[in-house]
Amino acid sequence: MLKLLKPGSTIGMLGGGQLGRMAAASALRLGYHCHVYAQSADEPAVEAASDATIGAWDDFAALDRFADAVDVITLEFENVPPEVARHLAARKPLRPGVDALATAQDRIAEKTFLNSIGVETARWARVESSATLEAATQSVGFPAILKVARQGYDGKGQIRISGSQVAETAWTSLGRVPCVLEGIVAFEREISVVLARGQDGVIAAYPAVENRHENGILQETLAPAALPQILAEEAQATAERIALALDFVGVLAVEYFIDGPRLLVNEIAPRPHNSGHWTMDACYVCQFEQQIRAVAGLPLGSTIRHSNAVMTNLIGEAVLEWQTHIADPGAHLHLYGKNEIRPGRKMGHVTRVSPVARPANASR
Amino acid sequence: MLKLLKPGSTIGMLGGGQLGRMAAASALRLGYHCHVYAQSADEPAVEAASDATIGAWDDFAALDRFADAVDVITLEFENVPPEVARHLAARKPLRPGVDALATAQDRIAEKTFLNSIGVETARWARVESSATLEAATQSVGFPAILKVARQGYDGKGQIRISGSQVAETAWTSLGRVPCVLEGIVAFEREISVVLARGQDGVIAAYPAVENRHENGILQETLAPAALPQILAEEAQATAERIALALDFVGVLAVEYFIDGPRLLVNEIAPRPHNSGHWTMDACYVCQFEQQIRAVAGLPLGSTIRHSNAVMTNLIGEAVLEWQTHIADPGAHLHLYGKNEIRPGRKMGHVTRVSPVARPANASR
Repeated sequence: MLKLLKPGSTIGMLGGGQLGRMAAASALRLGYHCHVYAQSADEPAVEAASDATIGAWDDFAALDRFADAVDVITLEFENVPPEVARHLAARKPLRPGVDALATAQDRIAEKTFLNSIGVETARWARVESSATLEAATQSVGFPAILKVARQGYDGKGQIRISGSQVAETAWTSLGRVPCVLEGIVAFEREISVVLARGQDGVIAAYPAVENRHENGILQETLAPAALPQILAEEAQATAERIALALDFVGVLAVEYFIDGPRLLVNEIAPRPHNSGHWTMDACYVCQFEQQIRAVAGLPLGSTIRHSNAVMTNLIGEAVLEWQTHIADPGAHLHLYGKNEIRPGRKMGHVTRVSPVARPANASR
Repeated sequence: MLKLLKPGSTIGMLGGGQLGRMAAASALRLGYHCHVYAQSADEPAVEAASDATIGAWDDFAALDRFADAVDVITLEFENVPPEVARHLAARKPLRPGVDALATAQDRIAEKTFLNSIGVETARWARVESSATLEAATQSVGFPAILKVARQGYDGKGQIRISGSQVAETAWTSLGRVPCVLEGIVAFEREISVVLARGQDGVIAAYPAVENRHENGILQETLAPAALPQILAEEAQATAERIALALDFVGVLAVEYFIDGPRLLVNEIAPRPHNSGHWTMDACYVCQFEQQIRAVAGLPLGSTIRHSNAVMTNLIGEAVLEWQTHIADPGAHLHLYGKNEIRPGRKMGHVTRVSPVARPANASR
């Protein structure tokens, strides 16, 4: 029933960032070759992969060489241009598929999809003209946040706006590209669920984790999240519903705001996610191995954790503290091999683990 | 005090086998580049490494290019020719060093060294001529095993002999090279200790494990070994004594026979060891990361295990059972990317983990 990829086959990875670097390690561990498509030879995944094709996203000759060299294609970069995804999917199996990717790439398509399957989001409206901007400010209200529909990440491409008088200026500063205006949730906390879905439809979900952001960039993940059981279960169930509706194959991350008793989906990512990095050091099978298993048609692995974890991103100059982390016996250091430190750049992460507490009903 | 290698530096790895493949993954995780010296581009470590130099062990031009490209050199292949080790050590720091390597490469030097520091081995004698063979059979007795002094591994280069009448024939079949004749220990069990020793002299030892061999090849490792505490501690202490006496930097494995109440050292290996593979899936820090830490002058990591483990080698056609293993939720599959299945060839391994039992004195 599974279209099984035999060891010795080659998994193609679109994107050369740290997610690809870590996935390449999992691919090799399972006996696959991993061939990366990157824009530059010094991207983090290139040295970890078996092979690489270096090319731009509009270099179809390079993309064809890449497709010829691999047996199946997956990705670590969600903003693969739609025409590239379609071009490659016509040549080799692409997992996740073109439709799931198109949905996750565009905030308008994503929120429309989520609401269509009954998943709640913050109040939102599309902004594609001065007229729709005006209508959006009225339907969404203030404070609100204006986000570009495509290509935003790590807090880039978004502006908070406090009233209608600054809306037009804000939209202009974002280039007057299609946007969404979102109501700001007075959320206490943000959580996420990372899951994998195999080609057989089986889903393996990690427990919900809590995420703390600074300046729009994930700073820290606490695994598992300290949540009422009912909310944790609802977060998992909602993520599974999304994966099913997308007929998703691979690793999917779903980010939530907690708004009082309600869970609102913030966004989804069709790939391993920063908030799943803790699984490398605290679970028997990590999110990157799950991605490889799903893409290769293998049964998914266990999501059981042997430890609890706190994952801290090393952003910009925080990486200079690496010696402190490496000397901490409870810490696992991961550095991404990036030469240049820049503010806001994810240079690595460190995971601190602690034993899983005994079940609450155990004595002592 | 430590000569610290900064992330972004390059660790040179002599040898392209699976040990180098797994160590390369650890090097990259810590932000180092890993440059492999291999005899052929299809050796397992090459695709996992950042870069590789392909050359024979007597290709000094290639060895010099390798030395120029790296900041420090370590190894996954213990039979690096001594003149190569000396040549490279004159160019870049080599860890472990030339002397430790020379001792571990030669059974005569190794046993002489071990006995000189008061470590017990099975009865043995050197064989370098018909006269010394004759003397050896008389001092060692029968049954005995004749082993080539250099280059033997996985049961190769050794013959059991039952009496003096076959000794000469056996030695001839081994090429009349220098050998040791060892008394066969009526041992119940074989165990090993894997440890790392840092540049600061700090030692981090994993618990003793039990090893089961078939046809001279490690088949299974049980971690930890079910041993009287006093023997387990003696095994660790002896391994630490050996590391100290060799002024060893890196990962050292010590194999023992259990002969009644006595521990006899069988042999040592100056590198990560097959009986330490379980640490990848059951310990917070694995033997390969310890090797990288030691070589890079970093503090060693914790050897605490979060799980118990049984590691089974996938030898020859046993690798064809990979689908059974990948479907087992408690199993971790590792395949080495070798194209050709040959009898006796280590193609991969699988580690089955189980929770560490509660301390015996904990209440239920």
